[in-house]
Amino acid sequence: MKKRVFVTLKPGVLDPQGRAVHHALDGLGFAGVEDVRIGRLIELELSQDVSDESLREMCEKLLANTVIENYRIEDAQSGE
Amino acid sequence: MKKRVFVTLKPGVLDPQGRAVHHALDGLGFAGVEDVRIGRLIELELSQDVSDESLREMCEKLLANTVIENYRIEDAQSGE
Repeated sequence: MKKRVFVTLKPGVLDPQGRAVHHALDGLGFAGVEDVRIGRLIELELSQDVSDESLREMCEKLLANTVIENYRIEDAQSGE
Repeated sequence: MKKRVFVTLKPGVLDPQGRAVHHALDGLGFAGVEDVRIGRLIELELSQDVSDESLREMCEKLLANTVIENYRIEDAQSGE
């Protein structure tokens, strides 16, 4: 089964990468960009016996830094 | 309005970061992980007058490297 984990910075945490992209978009002449924030998308192919609890543990221990980041788990079709 | 851009490596492109995470999960004792691939999630806050065409152009020119990456654009609720 395929799962997606979205890891995003918590609100209020400074995002220098997002700021750099925002600045670069301005430099390229794109108007109307008010804010850019960058996170990670982690796609995992798991065997059927991996529980949701186990996946949450992976997120807590390795995939996200829960001090400054939030994560969200989503099912994905295996064929996608 | 808020938009999300998901940038993922094209199939077949080597993903050293994903491989490192896969290896680290194994090392932590998580069984059943078959594959890990890592992409970017870019959240953009745009003013209403930015067209979808303009957003696609941002992706093609800056946000994604279309030689090795695919991107997908999704609407997001501004309140999320």
